[in-house]
Amino acid sequence: MANTPTPIGGKYENKDIVSLDQFSSKDINILFKKVGLMKRIANKAKKSEILKGNIVALIFYEPSTRTFSSFSAAIKRLGGETIDLRDLERVSSVAKGESLKDTVRTLEAYCDALVIRHPEKGTAELTSEYIEIPVINAGDGTGEHPTQALLDLYTINEQRGALGGLTGLMVGDMLNGRTVHSLIRGLSKFKNNTVYLLSPKELRLSVSDREDFQKRGIRLIEIFSENEIPRNAHFWYWTRVQKERFKNLNTYNRVKNRFILNPDLIDKYAGKKTIFMHPLPRVLEIAEEVDKDPRAMYFRHQLKNGMYVRMALLGLVLGRLK
Amino acid sequence: MANTPTPIGGKYENKDIVSLDQFSSKDINILFKKVGLMKRIANKAKKSEILKGNIVALIFYEPSTRTFSSFSAAIKRLGGETIDLRDLERVSSVAKGESLKDTVRTLEAYCDALVIRHPEKGTAELTSEYIEIPVINAGDGTGEHPTQALLDLYTINEQRGALGGLTGLMVGDMLNGRTVHSLIRGLSKFKNNTVYLLSPKELRLSVSDREDFQKRGIRLIEIFSENEIPRNAHFWYWTRVQKERFKNLNTYNRVKNRFILNPDLIDKYAGKKTIFMHPLPRVLEIAEEVDKDPRAMYFRHQLKNGMYVRMALLGLVLGRLK
Amino acid sequence: MANTPTPIGGKYENKDIVSLDQFSSKDINILFKKVGLMKRIANKAKKSEILKGNIVALIFYEPSTRTFSSFSAAIKRLGGETIDLRDLERVSSVAKGESLKDTVRTLEAYCDALVIRHPEKGTAELTSEYIEIPVINAGDGTGEHPTQALLDLYTINEQRGALGGLTGLMVGDMLNGRTVHSLIRGLSKFKNNTVYLLSPKELRLSVSDREDFQKRGIRLIEIFSENEIPRNAHFWYWTRVQKERFKNLNTYNRVKNRFILNPDLIDKYAGKKTIFMHPLPRVLEIAEEVDKDPRAMYFRHQLKNGMYVRMALLGLVLGRLK
Repeated sequence: MANTPTPIGGKYENKDIVSLDQFSSKDINILFKKVGLMKRIANKAKKSEILKGNIVALIFYEPSTRTFSSFSAAIKRLGGETIDLRDLERVSSVAKGESLKDTVRTLEAYCDALVIRHPEKGTAELTSEYIEIPVINAGDGTGEHPTQALLDLYTINEQRGALGGLTGLMVGDMLNGRTVHSLIRGLSKFKNNTVYLLSPKELRLSVSDREDFQKRGIRLIEIFSENEIPRNAHFWYWTRVQKERFKNLNTYNRVKNRFILNPDLIDKYAGKKTIFMHPLPRVLEIAEEVDKDPRAMYFRHQLKNGMYVRMALLGLVLGRLK
Repeated sequence: MANTPTPIGGKYENKDIVSLDQFSSKDINILFKKVGLMKRIANKAKKSEILKGNIVALIFYEPSTRTFSSFSAAIKRLGGETIDLRDLERVSSVAKGESLKDTVRTLEAYCDALVIRHPEKGTAELTSEYIEIPVINAGDGTGEHPTQALLDLYTINEQRGALGGLTGLMVGDMLNGRTVHSLIRGLSKFKNNTVYLLSPKELRLSVSDREDFQKRGIRLIEIFSENEIPRNAHFWYWTRVQKERFKNLNTYNRVKNRFILNPDLIDKYAGKKTIFMHPLPRVLEIAEEVDKDPRAMYFRHQLKNGMYVRMALLGLVLGRLK
Repeated sequence: MANTPTPIGGKYENKDIVSLDQFSSKDINILFKKVGLMKRIANKAKKSEILKGNIVALIFYEPSTRTFSSFSAAIKRLGGETIDLRDLERVSSVAKGESLKDTVRTLEAYCDALVIRHPEKGTAELTSEYIEIPVINAGDGTGEHPTQALLDLYTINEQRGALGGLTGLMVGDMLNGRTVHSLIRGLSKFKNNTVYLLSPKELRLSVSDREDFQKRGIRLIEIFSENEIPRNAHFWYWTRVQKERFKNLNTYNRVKNRFILNPDLIDKYAGKKTIFMHPLPRVLEIAEEVDKDPRAMYFRHQLKNGMYVRMALLGLVLGRLK
């Protein structure tokens, strides 16, 4: 029984950001319009004062390099401060048996917003019910990772000039992959999108997710073999099969490297403008030689866009960007 | 053989803050007079420059969410910076066999003040003897936690209009509870205070603590059953029975939930203005439904007051608040 | 097959700092000329804006108190910000199997420079090849620790008035000690230096290091007994025998405390102006009573000089100090 999070409805100030479902295409455009300014701020290495006086708690119950660093840099580039709580079982009162609810209510007293990553689906939304300062979901288990989807959409729009009328390919773990789920939600808000989902049969979309997504007006086509990859798609979105989501390591070992993005596959199916995306971290599912291909977006564009999008989002949610 | 720490004597600059024993009632009033300004700074989300250019080391040898975050926010809201050293056995030279003495002498070279939490009683005072920059005790095992007691006193004064002539109730682990010990020391500085101490017999005050406190002019009444709770006390101060202080888990399990703050107990013994306090983290010793009671101070007032009191204390100790 | 890192050649901006081999004596003098200004900034407790708007990643794969805190303070005292990644196996995507290469390429997207400590020799240089922002080596296993050597040289110059024509003594683990290796490289750049190397036979310089150093024009004399210590040397440089470098703990236990710096040894061999240095952490190899000797530099001068030298280096490398 999922709750319905509050729609943005054109007004970001004081909103929690827990799911892509809160965003209309118009909301996404409002956000993206602020990104240009964020880029200029970040690139002139001149600290902005947009978040001066704001403190944001970064509370991470799961490992993270990218999302943690990206939020931290976004806040600091705008002149704000962070309080970092990582590795929580060791360094915090969680070690003394404190509940998540009490932990976040405590941080609410000191901070102006809270960014949370947690291994359990639904935790970000629960957190947003416990406290009144804005909560931003930085990944909740197999649930969602809305800022990742927003940066992915931003990158697609930047590179392909539109967010509708696209044909895409998503590869990897469709069952557990939260970045995939959030991106499908995002693409559903724009017209005439078709996405091919390539995964081992063991990792296909769950029935409930498939039904949920189909209602949204996006065309999803499940495929289970590389032969079925459509030629010349607008984007390829590769993902890691996440070891930490498997209870049975044998299953993991059987499926982990089924589909590898490599020059052969690119030659067979990609077009000249097909962009190659990945939320990172990547383990073995993209051959390193692909990194140099100008169509590869994962190091060159997605990372920086992630920082810019998070800067814009924080500025809006904290009411400091109008 | 306890040392006597230096009294504040009306002058905070460059003082170590290791024990409530250093404070006279006048010193406490000097501190509390600065808190109003701190509140205004924190609430306008406009970073102050009071601690601009100051770096404070937060060195935590024990887990902490609240105290760590509260000090961190206090410093940052005043424009200062922190160097965070947590989980020290893993990430620092303690892992290479370095002594506490050498570790803090090292930090002294880089920082302007040092906040320390440590599992062993007396460590904060020892630290203050090793180095010349101000040292603030953020909890030393079963010893003291002076900034907790100061925020507790501030909250009592704010809510009940005085710090003398009070009747209070303290519940939980009187043997090991450092927050209780510090608060008793604090209340002893004001006239005509009576505190009932409710604990399992196994966790009553030690003989030496009882003798020490009795000399200070506070009236302490030990009770071992809820029936003996005085009606209509000015404040109730509940505490967690701290698992980490027990060598024998059987003892812990026998005593941990002996006394629970719940609506029944409140109906029987509390008055309309009795305030309910807890230093947090709370595990099961306060029923969650009490959280909504307007007399419950632990989330609504104690946390924020803690940040304000720490802001004022740091500003004074670092000589930046006059 | 060691690569040759790029020489500074009088121009610090955008250079990686991985080895003392990059520095000429002139480069070292350029750096040291900036240190006075850094001292004045740090001591007036007035935050500089020299690094305002810069974010530096501190990525530590090994425990560190001193180097971590010193870099952190250096950056913050100049108005810059840090992103701290410590204990990486636990809190980052390294836990998900991400390569060092991908991790640092990620941080490059958010930060303006990267300071790295890693247990494997050569890692800092490898890192500098992966990314384009400046990389600073904060210790790479048994390899180098160039900022330590720079602060050591600064301290020798400050105390003894020159960096050439010196007679020194280095004691401890000559085989694995990276601070010793970096300092020998540094002293080689100046004329007429002689260094006595006192170590257990098991920990003497490797053949390849000895050959390498001999080519550089420094005179090295290996000794294996305290009786051979030269009288009245300009400096003594003691080091810890690093437990973490030993595969066999029996060997470690046999050699760890062979040579102890104590008042007896000082009386026998030191001169009135001989300075006593140590990179810290110290375990048992310097008797605590030596700490008070005015000739002991390790707490009084080396630590602070380390912060000043790192401030100057960061300002130069980031192009903000001219």
